[in-house]
Amino acid sequence: MKYWSKITKTLTPYVPGEQLNEPGIIKLNTNENPFPPSPKVIEKIKKCLGSELKKYPDPESTELRNSIADFYEIEKDNVFVGNGSDEVLAHVFMAFFKDKKLYFPDITYSFYPVYCGLYEINYQTISLNKKFEMETKEYLNLDGNIIFPNPNAPTGIGMELDAIEKILKNNPGNLVVVDEAYIDFGGKSAVELIDNYKNLLIVQTFSKSRSLAGMRIGFAIGDEKLIEGLIRVKDSFNSYPLDRLAQAAGKAAMEDRDYFEYTRDEIIKNREWTISELRMRGMELLPSKANFIFVRVKDAENMYRELKARKILVRYFKKPLMDSYLRISIGTKEEMGKLIKNIDQIMGV
Amino acid sequence: MKYWSKITKTLTPYVPGEQLNEPGIIKLNTNENPFPPSPKVIEKIKKCLGSELKKYPDPESTELRNSIADFYEIEKDNVFVGNGSDEVLAHVFMAFFKDKKLYFPDITYSFYPVYCGLYEINYQTISLNKKFEMETKEYLNLDGNIIFPNPNAPTGIGMELDAIEKILKNNPGNLVVVDEAYIDFGGKSAVELIDNYKNLLIVQTFSKSRSLAGMRIGFAIGDEKLIEGLIRVKDSFNSYPLDRLAQAAGKAAMEDRDYFEYTRDEIIKNREWTISELRMRGMELLPSKANFIFVRVKDAENMYRELKARKILVRYFKKPLMDSYLRISIGTKEEMGKLIKNIDQIMGV
Repeated sequence: MKYWSKITKTLTPYVPGEQLNEPGIIKLNTNENPFPPSPKVIEKIKKCLGSELKKYPDPESTELRNSIADFYEIEKDNVFVGNGSDEVLAHVFMAFFKDKKLYFPDITYSFYPVYCGLYEINYQTISLNKKFEMETKEYLNLDGNIIFPNPNAPTGIGMELDAIEKILKNNPGNLVVVDEAYIDFGGKSAVELIDNYKNLLIVQTFSKSRSLAGMRIGFAIGDEKLIEGLIRVKDSFNSYPLDRLAQAAGKAAMEDRDYFEYTRDEIIKNREWTISELRMRGMELLPSKANFIFVRVKDAENMYRELKARKILVRYFKKPLMDSYLRISIGTKEEMGKLIKNIDQIMGV
Repeated sequence: MKYWSKITKTLTPYVPGEQLNEPGIIKLNTNENPFPPSPKVIEKIKKCLGSELKKYPDPESTELRNSIADFYEIEKDNVFVGNGSDEVLAHVFMAFFKDKKLYFPDITYSFYPVYCGLYEINYQTISLNKKFEMETKEYLNLDGNIIFPNPNAPTGIGMELDAIEKILKNNPGNLVVVDEAYIDFGGKSAVELIDNYKNLLIVQTFSKSRSLAGMRIGFAIGDEKLIEGLIRVKDSFNSYPLDRLAQAAGKAAMEDRDYFEYTRDEIIKNREWTISELRMRGMELLPSKANFIFVRVKDAENMYRELKARKILVRYFKKPLMDSYLRISIGTKEEMGKLIKNIDQIMGV
C-alpha cells in the first residue's frame, strides 16, 4: 500500500484474546475478573450522566490520580494514568526506551515486542530457567533498560521484592519497569521502593483486580521526573485519554477497599481450589500469584478446542515453549467447577 | 533527566484550552457543544451499566463503526475509530506521514507540529493568503503528504469540495488528510469522494456536533487499505482504545439524526446572530463555517482577560498572525447574549 509508512508495513500487531459474545459462554481466556465492578462504581457513573458529557474531561485526571495516590500513600505527581495499561506501556516505550537496548524475559507479555516494532526499539530476550522463573543474576549490570511483569504472564510466577531491589541496585543507569498487572492476587507491589530508586517505574491496571476491563484504565507509579516524561509524551499524543465516566469509575473503584479485598480474596481461594483439583488429577501447574494458572496439558491445542466446543474459553499460545500449556483465568467457584467437570469428561475420567 | 529518551526531551506538548470548573462560568474556549448529548445517549449508557463492565470491550468497535458507516452510506471497513480525533490523528501521523515531508497551513490546528515532533516528521507550512484562506494552487503537485482542517481552525473558514478535489487529483502520490472536526456546522464533507480518491482520508469527531467531548470518540473515513493501515498501528499500540460506554454512547449519538440536526441548526443560528451583533459594533470577523468565530479585537489579550474576569472564557493564541484575534465558541442564545453584553461593558459602550 503506497501510502503506508515503512514502519506500518513491518508491524506484527498484538492479537488480544477472543471476545466471544455468545450467551452462556464461560470466559477464562483474558484474565478478566469474574466479579462485576463495585456497586459504588455504577452509582458514581450514574451521577455523571448529565449535561457535563458535552464538555472535555479533566486532561490531567486529577481526582483519579489523587485516589490512586491516597491508596498507595504517595503523591499525585508520582502517578500517571492512561487508557488501559496497554496505552501506559506504549507511552513508557516511547518516553524511555527509544535510545538503548531493551531486555525482557523470553516468555512474557507478548505486547512488549510489538511496542518495540512500533517504536523501532532494539530488544533482547533473556531465557527463563527450567522452572519458568526469571533468574535474578541474568538481570544485573545490563547495558540497557529492563521490563518484566511481576507476577510474570502467562506463567503466573511471582518475584520477591528483594530480587527486584537487587536488579534496581545493579542497574543504576537503566530504567527498570515492573508491570504489576496481576500484583494484587498474591504478590507484593514494588511501590514502596520508588523513593529509594529513581530508576523504578511500576505499571498497573484496573482491568484485573478492579473488575473494570470494560472501562480501560491503567496507571504508572514512579519518581515525579519519570511521570513528567510520560505526561510530555501523552500531551504530544492525546490530551484527554480518559473520558469523564472512566475517570469517575476509576476513582470510585480505588476508594472501595472492602469490595476490592473481598473479590480478590475470593479469586485467590478459587485459584487454590482449582490448583488442588487439577493436581489431584495428576496435572502439572506452575505456582501462580496471579488470577490465572498455567497448566501443562497433554495435547494442549486439542484441549483448548474441546473446551471451546463446550463453551469454555481458555487461552492457548501456539508458540515455542508455551504450546504444551493452557493459560486459564480464575472465574467464580461455579465456573471453575464446570471447568473441572468438563476437563474430566474430555479426558474420559 | 537521564532516563528520558532523546525525543522526550525535545517535545513541546500541545496545550489544550483551560478546563475551569467554577460554577457559573460561560465556557466559549474549547469549541464544545452548548447542548447536552441526546437523551438517547444517556439512556443507552444506562443500559450498559452492569456486570459487563468487568469484560474487555469489543476491540474492533464493530457496532460503533457500523453506525458511522450507515450514516454516511459506506462500509464498516471504510471506518476507523479512536479515543477522540486527537488519537486518530496521532495514528494517522505514524501510519502514513513518517517517511516524507508533510505540508499544512501556517495557521491551523496547533497539534499538527506537535505530532511531527513526537514522530520525527519533517514538515513545511504554507502561508494562508491575506484573507486567511488556503490558496488551492499552493497545494498542487507537492513532494509530500498534506493535512488541513476543513473548515480551518482557528479561522473557521471553509473550503469548497471542488478545491479539495483539485488538490486530490494533483497529488496522486501523496496522502491528503482532511480534518473535518467542524464540518457539520455549514461545510460539505468530502466523504463522497473516497471511492474516487484512494489518497483521501477524512477525520471527524464526536466532540463538537455530537455533544460528546466528555466521551472521547473520533473517527477516520477512507479507502479500506488506509483504514487497514490505521488498524495495524492501533493494534500495535492499544487493542481497546474505546471503552464499553464510549462505544455505546457514540452509536446512540450517530443514530439520533433528529437531535443532531436540531442542535446543529440552533448553533448555526446563534453563530449568525452573534456575527451580526459584532459586525454592528464595527468588529471585523472572518466568515465562519464552524461552531466558533475568529474576531479581530483591539488589544485582544486584554479583552480575553477582561472577559475571563467576568467569568466568560474565550481562547486567545499568543502567536504571530493570531494575536490580534480571539476565537470564540458558539454557545446557547443566552450565553451569546451575555457575551455581547459584557463586550459592550468592557468597551464602555
